[in-house]
Amino acid sequence: MGIGTREQYIKRLREQNPEIHMGGKRVENMVDDPHFMVGINSIATTYDSANDPAYEDLATVKSSLIGVKISRWTHILENQHDAVAKVKLMRKSGESCCFCNYRCLTNDTLNTAWIISYDIDKKYNTNYHSRVREIVKRVQKEDLAIGGTVIDCKGVRTLKPSEQPDPDVYLHLVEKRKDGIIVRGAKAHSTAVGYTNMLCALPCIAMGENEKDYAVAFFAPVDTKGIKFIARPSPVPSEKKKFENPISSKYGHVEFMAIYDNVFIPWENVFMCGEYEFSGQLVLTFTGHHILNKCGCRAAAMELDIGATALVAEVNGVEKASHIRGYISEMMVNTELVYSCGIASAVDGVTHESGAFIPNFIPAFASKYYAAKKLGEHRYYMQDTAGGLVETMSSEKDILEPETGKYLEKYLKGKEGVPTENRIRAIKLIEELTASPFAGWYHAMCISGGGGPQLLKQAINYAYDVKSLVKRAKSITGIED
Amino acid sequence: MGIGTREQYIKRLREQNPEIHMGGKRVENMVDDPHFMVGINSIATTYDSANDPAYEDLATVKSSLIGVKISRWTHILENQHDAVAKVKLMRKSGESCCFCNYRCLTNDTLNTAWIISYDIDKKYNTNYHSRVREIVKRVQKEDLAIGGTVIDCKGVRTLKPSEQPDPDVYLHLVEKRKDGIIVRGAKAHSTAVGYTNMLCALPCIAMGENEKDYAVAFFAPVDTKGIKFIARPSPVPSEKKKFENPISSKYGHVEFMAIYDNVFIPWENVFMCGEYEFSGQLVLTFTGHHILNKCGCRAAAMELDIGATALVAEVNGVEKASHIRGYISEMMVNTELVYSCGIASAVDGVTHESGAFIPNFIPAFASKYYAAKKLGEHRYYMQDTAGGLVETMSSEKDILEPETGKYLEKYLKGKEGVPTENRIRAIKLIEELTASPFAGWYHAMCISGGGGPQLLKQAINYAYDVKSLVKRAKSITGIED
Amino acid sequence: MGIGTREQYIKRLREQNPEIHMGGKRVENMVDDPHFMVGINSIATTYDSANDPAYEDLATVKSSLIGVKISRWTHILENQHDAVAKVKLMRKSGESCCFCNYRCLTNDTLNTAWIISYDIDKKYNTNYHSRVREIVKRVQKEDLAIGGTVIDCKGVRTLKPSEQPDPDVYLHLVEKRKDGIIVRGAKAHSTAVGYTNMLCALPCIAMGENEKDYAVAFFAPVDTKGIKFIARPSPVPSEKKKFENPISSKYGHVEFMAIYDNVFIPWENVFMCGEYEFSGQLVLTFTGHHILNKCGCRAAAMELDIGATALVAEVNGVEKASHIRGYISEMMVNTELVYSCGIASAVDGVTHESGAFIPNFIPAFASKYYAAKKLGEHRYYMQDTAGGLVETMSSEKDILEPETGKYLEKYLKGKEGVPTENRIRAIKLIEELTASPFAGWYHAMCISGGGGPQLLKQAINYAYDVKSLVKRAKSITGIED
Amino acid sequence: MGIGTREQYIKRLREQNPEIHMGGKRVENMVDDPHFMVGINSIATTYDSANDPAYEDLATVKSSLIGVKISRWTHILENQHDAVAKVKLMRKSGESCCFCNYRCLTNDTLNTAWIISYDIDKKYNTNYHSRVREIVKRVQKEDLAIGGTVIDCKGVRTLKPSEQPDPDVYLHLVEKRKDGIIVRGAKAHSTAVGYTNMLCALPCIAMGENEKDYAVAFFAPVDTKGIKFIARPSPVPSEKKKFENPISSKYGHVEFMAIYDNVFIPWENVFMCGEYEFSGQLVLTFTGHHILNKCGCRAAAMELDIGATALVAEVNGVEKASHIRGYISEMMVNTELVYSCGIASAVDGVTHESGAFIPNFIPAFASKYYAAKKLGEHRYYMQDTAGGLVETMSSEKDILEPETGKYLEKYLKGKEGVPTENRIRAIKLIEELTASPFAGWYHAMCISGGGGPQLLKQAINYAYDVKSLVKRAKSITGIED
Repeated sequence: MGIGTREQYIKRLREQNPEIHMGGKRVENMVDDPHFMVGINSIATTYDSANDPAYEDLATVKSSLIGVKISRWTHILENQHDAVAKVKLMRKSGESCCFCNYRCLTNDTLNTAWIISYDIDKKYNTNYHSRVREIVKRVQKEDLAIGGTVIDCKGVRTLKPSEQPDPDVYLHLVEKRKDGIIVRGAKAHSTAVGYTNMLCALPCIAMGENEKDYAVAFFAPVDTKGIKFIARPSPVPSEKKKFENPISSKYGHVEFMAIYDNVFIPWENVFMCGEYEFSGQLVLTFTGHHILNKCGCRAAAMELDIGATALVAEVNGVEKASHIRGYISEMMVNTELVYSCGIASAVDGVTHESGAFIPNFIPAFASKYYAAKKLGEHRYYMQDTAGGLVETMSSEKDILEPETGKYLEKYLKGKEGVPTENRIRAIKLIEELTASPFAGWYHAMCISGGGGPQLLKQAINYAYDVKSLVKRAKSITGIED
Repeated sequence: MGIGTREQYIKRLREQNPEIHMGGKRVENMVDDPHFMVGINSIATTYDSANDPAYEDLATVKSSLIGVKISRWTHILENQHDAVAKVKLMRKSGESCCFCNYRCLTNDTLNTAWIISYDIDKKYNTNYHSRVREIVKRVQKEDLAIGGTVIDCKGVRTLKPSEQPDPDVYLHLVEKRKDGIIVRGAKAHSTAVGYTNMLCALPCIAMGENEKDYAVAFFAPVDTKGIKFIARPSPVPSEKKKFENPISSKYGHVEFMAIYDNVFIPWENVFMCGEYEFSGQLVLTFTGHHILNKCGCRAAAMELDIGATALVAEVNGVEKASHIRGYISEMMVNTELVYSCGIASAVDGVTHESGAFIPNFIPAFASKYYAAKKLGEHRYYMQDTAGGLVETMSSEKDILEPETGKYLEKYLKGKEGVPTENRIRAIKLIEELTASPFAGWYHAMCISGGGGPQLLKQAINYAYDVKSLVKRAKSITGIED
Repeated sequence: MGIGTREQYIKRLREQNPEIHMGGKRVENMVDDPHFMVGINSIATTYDSANDPAYEDLATVKSSLIGVKISRWTHILENQHDAVAKVKLMRKSGESCCFCNYRCLTNDTLNTAWIISYDIDKKYNTNYHSRVREIVKRVQKEDLAIGGTVIDCKGVRTLKPSEQPDPDVYLHLVEKRKDGIIVRGAKAHSTAVGYTNMLCALPCIAMGENEKDYAVAFFAPVDTKGIKFIARPSPVPSEKKKFENPISSKYGHVEFMAIYDNVFIPWENVFMCGEYEFSGQLVLTFTGHHILNKCGCRAAAMELDIGATALVAEVNGVEKASHIRGYISEMMVNTELVYSCGIASAVDGVTHESGAFIPNFIPAFASKYYAAKKLGEHRYYMQDTAGGLVETMSSEKDILEPETGKYLEKYLKGKEGVPTENRIRAIKLIEELTASPFAGWYHAMCISGGGGPQLLKQAINYAYDVKSLVKRAKSITGIED
Repeated sequence: MGIGTREQYIKRLREQNPEIHMGGKRVENMVDDPHFMVGINSIATTYDSANDPAYEDLATVKSSLIGVKISRWTHILENQHDAVAKVKLMRKSGESCCFCNYRCLTNDTLNTAWIISYDIDKKYNTNYHSRVREIVKRVQKEDLAIGGTVIDCKGVRTLKPSEQPDPDVYLHLVEKRKDGIIVRGAKAHSTAVGYTNMLCALPCIAMGENEKDYAVAFFAPVDTKGIKFIARPSPVPSEKKKFENPISSKYGHVEFMAIYDNVFIPWENVFMCGEYEFSGQLVLTFTGHHILNKCGCRAAAMELDIGATALVAEVNGVEKASHIRGYISEMMVNTELVYSCGIASAVDGVTHESGAFIPNFIPAFASKYYAAKKLGEHRYYMQDTAGGLVETMSSEKDILEPETGKYLEKYLKGKEGVPTENRIRAIKLIEELTASPFAGWYHAMCISGGGGPQLLKQAINYAYDVKSLVKRAKSITGIED
């Protein structure tokens, strides 16, 4: 109780029966389908860590709700320390699973629901918070994975939800019933949700009075009737590889569009229904939590960039070249900048009246924006270090076929003492990190996932106390305010 | 005569029989194999242009050797005007074939052979130049495509060719015979060469007296006995697509390792054999010519970035967002910088005693380096404009399947008046340009192809007249020289 | 005739009597005032070059108007060759005068007047062009220096000229008389104009019908009645220096606000009066010409950055440090990019019906924007190479005073074989280039002079054929247009 | 006791009599000399803050050594909280004193001496630590300002101290006596030390056995016999200004070379003498502490950049221009990145056996390097927002003189409702921040002060656990270690 295992997580997936379509067909057995395996494995690593003594301090924590040791990912953050630990866990997770273990969403949605339900109750005397508390306790006990369905399809960008030609492009209330609500709409960009246990739906923008029906937030089992998923496969290799695709054959994610086609949600799973004025705060709370994680996982991915660059420099025999050492230093600097913002975000957060801790989203947003801008630069460093073979090296079939393999063994040999195979493996890693479908997927995730650069910058601009800085400037120049 | 057609080019390929291995098998019928088609099509566009009245001024020129109109790609450049025209043709070719038509190599190898053979003859009284002249005339008459095999495998990077544990990692002379020479070794990174008509082998670095045997340069029919190719397939989609892969299903290239396994080359095809002291000049002449082209083709690719960004902004309904207009301006500036260096390179070139024109490689190298550094930035702009769907949009199978397609049609609808299909197509274009195997291949080509960034910067540094600039600085400060 | 000398230029200045105010006083003898000397010297170098055989090809040209050899700066450009030569002259001028010889404005204003007067005459049957022709001939014969007064004060930025609370913030017609016109207003940012011979006033934005009175363009002797100048001194050192201020004690410029306080301009000097619809073209013609020059002079300034960095590395004994070699390479690349755009701008220009050549402003604008962005980076390179002494080295007074000088001689000694004095001089050069009032002035000139970055980017965006690029993107994706 | 005042600090300076030379003369009365006033005022603000209730939490702390409230700048850090508070105090200090209050050095030297003396004692059974403890207690009680003399003159860069032609270019032991030691040499780059109370000398590089005599560290009253200072004046305006130089007329620093000309230091002030193997650790401890502060003060300076940009945009009437809003967002992001590294550096530090806390220098170094690189960019943003007047606006004398002032009042008027004077003041602030001697001084301080970029990057590279990252990369690719 409190800490699940990889096996329990997978067993639970087998027991669920979500309606998933992919490649023009209904997916019958997700768990054994190679297209899903890498995503399931990515999430499973979070169960491994929680059971690994080396991770105990970071990956587990004692719940003040249920009194037992739980996964950090199901924990309601209580203070700076918890927030710092979340960033550190995320960075350290780079050791076992690169790029995205997705489990942060479990944490982000629970904390958001906890805080918002408290605030709405306070104003409207509703009783959302006690329901959320029950859900949190259950998630902690069973160590569940939650899937976030947050981003609406948005239709015409210049129109508000209530003004759209098709009202369904934002998820909305269709009917309020005694026992629950009916909702309709779809959420785009819902990474990994098909192989979680429970969805959490959040509204995605600040809204006005006309958007009352669009202010709905709730939890729902992943196989609730009426929820349909259209899946985009993970960029997994089409067949088993020996040297190639060292990352994408183990990690990655399926992307989902989650369609809510007149879905019934019982009241005990609902924590917002019509209270539109809380949607802005909800989004900032959720995003602040979520982007905090990214300071850790982006730093971890950058660490792999460093390791991969140093490795390929070594097998190429150019590890002492000063420009390559310069590249590596730049990547270290970037890693530290990105990670540090997570720590500052944690240190400068505040404790909410509900007892939950809210990180300061400003440094985290700065970090995510910066990391997105630097991705292309890192790939440039990696490729320039690896050289043209990233583009031109034969596929492993020709390497493994004796007739051609003998030539490749001979001509791909580099530094003395380094087996040709190691050089091949190192270059295939750079290829995977910079020039593969997986690299393409990750590029998009780094730029748009969790909020695009412009959105992040605008939020920072909005939240910054520019007035007091202008006042400071005026005072220095002698302009009276 | 002088201007061939697409059909003639393909017919000639059918008549050739090169030994190509790919994916663990011998390739029997290259022309009808989808993995090769896109590369063959890319080259074929150069024949189309030469027959297109809209391109006449740029794509064709009257040969002063054979007295008839020929393709610009088989022309020996005579002056600034010819060099400017080559850059402009390359940029304009972006209209028909994106990224790489490969035909520039025909031009670069012919011009290099022309110049170097002249200089060697002058010093050693050899008769290379007249043989090269005959080859040039034949290539002009038959409008052939030449494949460049230039980059040696290099083995231990810190050792010279003559010091390598395996002497074959640099192509070298094995035996000098009365009728010709025997050579052995392999050339890596030989894009597209399998579907040209004739290879040109060039030595790839400046050498010393011990490297005499490594100073060999020659032409050879692509199906010469002993030449073997190991091919890496073009990143072509594995099945026919309707919306997806708009570029890679038409354009791209196969990469080859070209193995010279004790190959006999008759003297009439040889233009360097032992004259090692000319290898540095040969490399700079070749690279200067080759990188000049890249100022044009990289500008063309950047123009597609601009067009694709403007298009996806339009279908997303965000074409007026100031940050997106800013992105587009930045890409325009980059395009102009990259292209302009090609023009300056042409204008500041010199006419060689042999009558051939040599561009100034310095601005061209600056351009190629700059373009490589900016590729990541362009992809950032494109993805931020397109948004998360680049990462998460379903594959076309779900779009075309009615059960899921009806939801996708509804929920992917954006701006009013823009068919959902158009939005899908535009986003799939951005995906192809930024997050696909094709994008990966092109990234590597931009960074390493034709010489990596560090090499280019070192060559500029070496060629710059820093001494006179230090003198200028000294004179201003009053330091006596 | 046709080529003046430094002495003739200065003699002419003595004979003029413009009304100049500076530092709260009327300037009586500009020529002998140290605050003006450096500016006058900067312009004088253009007369030196025209008389220097080493510059003959670039600095002089035969006039097709007056049939004799003239300064290139008074020449009406006739073709690509002339435009290329202007860029090259500007870059080469870096040998004698760094940063700004100002003489380009003579060329830019004459060419602009030549072209616009021709076009207006053609539409309205006016006779501006023949007057301009007479002025050009006189300027060529006497080798005059012209001062550009172009940028209006602009008042409220969001309002057009005709809507301003104070109509004078844009220069405008007050009265049209038989013999000429009366104008009023002021032009800001008029670098160097006080020590030229003749002003040229140009309108600075595209205008509508209500701005008829603001569409005035003319020439006027610098000491015309009613023209008043308020001068801002050149950042010249306040006393004579031995080591310090090696640049600003010789070169630099006074900045002027030129006030036209009800000034009478005879018709023979007017070339636009009310033809508002030509103002947009006038501005682009003028700016295209002017920014073309900047591709040369910015490249020359960057060359000094390179020379100064290499020099200071040498005296510090760190010339082999790889990061410093890297800095120098980056600056070379920037120099080539900036210069190349000037060449492309020249090569891609067009010949106007009037016989004058108009460069393509797009690459030149890209260059100026790029150079502005890179200035801070160059200064970073220079300072990091020079080290902390740029900030902390004693002033020369303590160096020259024996009691302290003995310590400084001892402790500032660096590399063996390099006199301490040379190290001091080299560091004082870096200080001048990066951390002096002169550096401050030049920073602002690089960013705002001739048009700020945003303006340049907008002009490029406006002029680019984005539609055809979108069409190309559509065609590739299969979207019907 | 424990918290001094501005008046006490200045009174103490009057009682001291250091030997200072400046501009070729001996400085007799530093306190009343305008060249020193701004530096003295900068330090004095730290006394103001300590007495300001609004700063109490950050600026003061209870000493566990002397049991009373002391200035944070004299505190031995005990934990993360202290380190976080130091960064926050530094950033908040931007409210009262821009750019450099210099007091951090008091803290950095005390903490370094505390730690190193402890470690040396432990190994050699010396009794340095108890002496340092006494000094710390006195500094806390009297709230003294300490000046750091750290950077040696270095002579020939490629030689070690013991190999230099002139041994004095590194400060060294001349004689060991019963009561103390005699030292000789000079320290460059000693900002502000002349107007502190006590110097601290630290060795500046890691050394070997031959450098025993160079491993000396001690405290010394500023007017100790034999210590001579050669001062470089603060870039203060030469006369009192109304609008101009709003910063440099109040803040700034004098730079000193501190010459130790056979100076006697009693043993009770010495805390290293010959223990060369501790010099590396000493430098990293000191620099880690010092650069931590810079994360705060650089963020504060960046905040002024933001305020000044927003202000000048407002008075120019362009505050809504999207590119300017973009500039401001970029500066916010930079501010957050720089500040956050300070926090991470504090959070990830460790407590030393001596009870003192040592921050993790890696993120702080990354921050300082990043901030140095971004300075030029900030200035670009500020100038582009302010426009050409930064370069061309008249000096205030012409503004205040009625004959010219009436024109300037009229023509410099911008946005309605904003007095012309405010516009002038705002632009003069931008001039000061980007294009003044003060800006030049600060530029150099940002790049070289506390360690140049290359040094910082090398230290990060050295300290990073690259091996474990290579191992991680190997493990992913399947290479056996």
